[in-house]
Amino acid sequence: MTQRVFNFNPGPAALPLAVLEQVKMEMLDFHGSGMSVLEISHRSKDFEAVIDSAVQRTGRLLGLDDGYHVLFIQGGASLQFAMVPMNLALAGRAVDYVNTGYWAARAIKEARALGKGVRVVATSEDAEFTFIPENVPVNADAAYLHLTSNNTIRGTQWKDFPDSKSVPLICDMSSDIFSRRFDPRPFGLIYAGAQKNIGPAGVTMVIVRNDMLERVPKDLPTMLKYTTYSENKSLHNTPPCFAIYVCELVLQWIEETVGGLESMERINDEKARILYDYIDSQQFYRGTARPGSRSRMNVTFLLPEAGLEKEFLDGAAQAGLVGLKGHRSVGGLRASLYNATTVEAVKALVDYMRHFVAKRG
Amino acid sequence: MTQRVFNFNPGPAALPLAVLEQVKMEMLDFHGSGMSVLEISHRSKDFEAVIDSAVQRTGRLLGLDDGYHVLFIQGGASLQFAMVPMNLALAGRAVDYVNTGYWAARAIKEARALGKGVRVVATSEDAEFTFIPENVPVNADAAYLHLTSNNTIRGTQWKDFPDSKSVPLICDMSSDIFSRRFDPRPFGLIYAGAQKNIGPAGVTMVIVRNDMLERVPKDLPTMLKYTTYSENKSLHNTPPCFAIYVCELVLQWIEETVGGLESMERINDEKARILYDYIDSQQFYRGTARPGSRSRMNVTFLLPEAGLEKEFLDGAAQAGLVGLKGHRSVGGLRASLYNATTVEAVKALVDYMRHFVAKRG
Repeated sequence: MTQRVFNFNPGPAALPLAVLEQVKMEMLDFHGSGMSVLEISHRSKDFEAVIDSAVQRTGRLLGLDDGYHVLFIQGGASLQFAMVPMNLALAGRAVDYVNTGYWAARAIKEARALGKGVRVVATSEDAEFTFIPENVPVNADAAYLHLTSNNTIRGTQWKDFPDSKSVPLICDMSSDIFSRRFDPRPFGLIYAGAQKNIGPAGVTMVIVRNDMLERVPKDLPTMLKYTTYSENKSLHNTPPCFAIYVCELVLQWIEETVGGLESMERINDEKARILYDYIDSQQFYRGTARPGSRSRMNVTFLLPEAGLEKEFLDGAAQAGLVGLKGHRSVGGLRASLYNATTVEAVKALVDYMRHFVAKRG
Repeated sequence: MTQRVFNFNPGPAALPLAVLEQVKMEMLDFHGSGMSVLEISHRSKDFEAVIDSAVQRTGRLLGLDDGYHVLFIQGGASLQFAMVPMNLALAGRAVDYVNTGYWAARAIKEARALGKGVRVVATSEDAEFTFIPENVPVNADAAYLHLTSNNTIRGTQWKDFPDSKSVPLICDMSSDIFSRRFDPRPFGLIYAGAQKNIGPAGVTMVIVRNDMLERVPKDLPTMLKYTTYSENKSLHNTPPCFAIYVCELVLQWIEETVGGLESMERINDEKARILYDYIDSQQFYRGTARPGSRSRMNVTFLLPEAGLEKEFLDGAAQAGLVGLKGHRSVGGLRASLYNATTVEAVKALVDYMRHFVAKRG
């Protein structure tokens, strides 16, 4: 049997081993049903218990009050880039966006293509998105203010969110949801593709505040309206059952094994600290994000010459460390330290980095 | 360990046991990668081999020529109800639909809501959708003619498709794709939610003829354009990797274990024949679809009194036969005999039905 590797993939990403073992164990017989979870009805009591539990765990972990719905939608964050303006823009009012990189720019592009009045109120584009803008202007007339909480490609992350007063924050949290505590109340809507911190690819969690649902235009296609999901517990049509089931197991792991978001945050802080402390302690590797904007989920760094990257990556793979290549749009190296990545994996990475310096430094 | 049951679920539905066993076996280590298939990148060679193989198997099984693209899209057939008219309607031309029941009606509703000029050219609504209309009028000026090849709720199925001449057929084949041979050439687009005959819920196969792609309006949201998928091999954003992986295994099973669509069709014919022959041989159970329109995938039938249904279903469950309840919109009973349902399962059902008659008939 092959050894499991240390997985630093940017998404789809590592899942907790205990979750994978449970999926494996019950693959042929889900909860004594005599069927696989892949074969049971989405309207069965067994599946309803799964989706209800995932919703309830999300509420407990994030401290949501009754004013929110937790939805499961297909199409990835990329579909949310369009659904957000389709559902939440308001006639005659601008929609404000902060451009912190590739994915934020895609969200902006979709809103523009829909003919919404997009204002980019802050950006770090001139500095290659190496930091999160400070003192973001908040316009009281905006229908919403859209942020990307963590930028996987540039390795930056919002530490504190802007005080948007009465303007609802809309946030793409695909790559850091459930990694730390935050106050959900300023957020009108949060969306997150599952494949980094929640589960497998193929489902997107959308957390929507009830007042946002009043904005949904009645004439949108059924599957593109948030109300279709909120009014039917995400079961208007057949949902991506398996992906939701794995999300439920991951949320259970965060809540019961890890011990909740405070513990999760402490572990994530430790992992990031180990790697950034090492990077800051030497001259060979160079972090690309400004220290004050560094992501605890994606650590981006460069070698002294790009020509060494292949050797670095090949040697890493031989040492059982995978997924360290930077995004194709920027190159370089990147270690993604999502929730399921262990402290042990990060220590193994730092050991390998030291070893590589000894050889090539 | 619990015994596996005979699964007659209407979808999500039974999967081949060999497929489930393989998924289970390689859950912690996909092809020696040291990672689960849930943890690998959608841009890895391993995953590209999966999706390429699924596309190629689909082409071979259906006899598609180079003029087609096979796409994997999220959102279910329900999202296709909107994407089809958004992408394929033509300015100033009507779109024609045949209304054969619940799902066809939902497709019609979405096209109407989008303001397309919908003509319902044939329907069996006045007869409770108990048959497939014959001699469907084909209007040469229609942008397309939309059909639902198999109607899961009413238990009806098209045997031969209308000769639509130059008008492209668009078909929802969610519940009978890969169950039988057919000539794909008249079809401009075929779509099928995977969760009946192809794999798990969470992915929809779309087979589109190249000339249809020329119709796609440039200003649609990115994720709602067929060209986004055709130009990026369904990898513009992260696809539902696991669902596609299971589809690939199911297609492999059809091609290599069953021996292709001719064999699959023969087995499906045999299963349907066993059940319909029994229904026609007695007076207790009554089939609801007209014999000439009967579905080989979903056999719908009634007991002498609806009051007996609970006893029938409870007894069936005790005998290890599940998923036999009719759709909540019509009641009655339904046995879904998709590809992965075995002849043995159908024989066990008929045995149980005989046994129930002996007790209550």
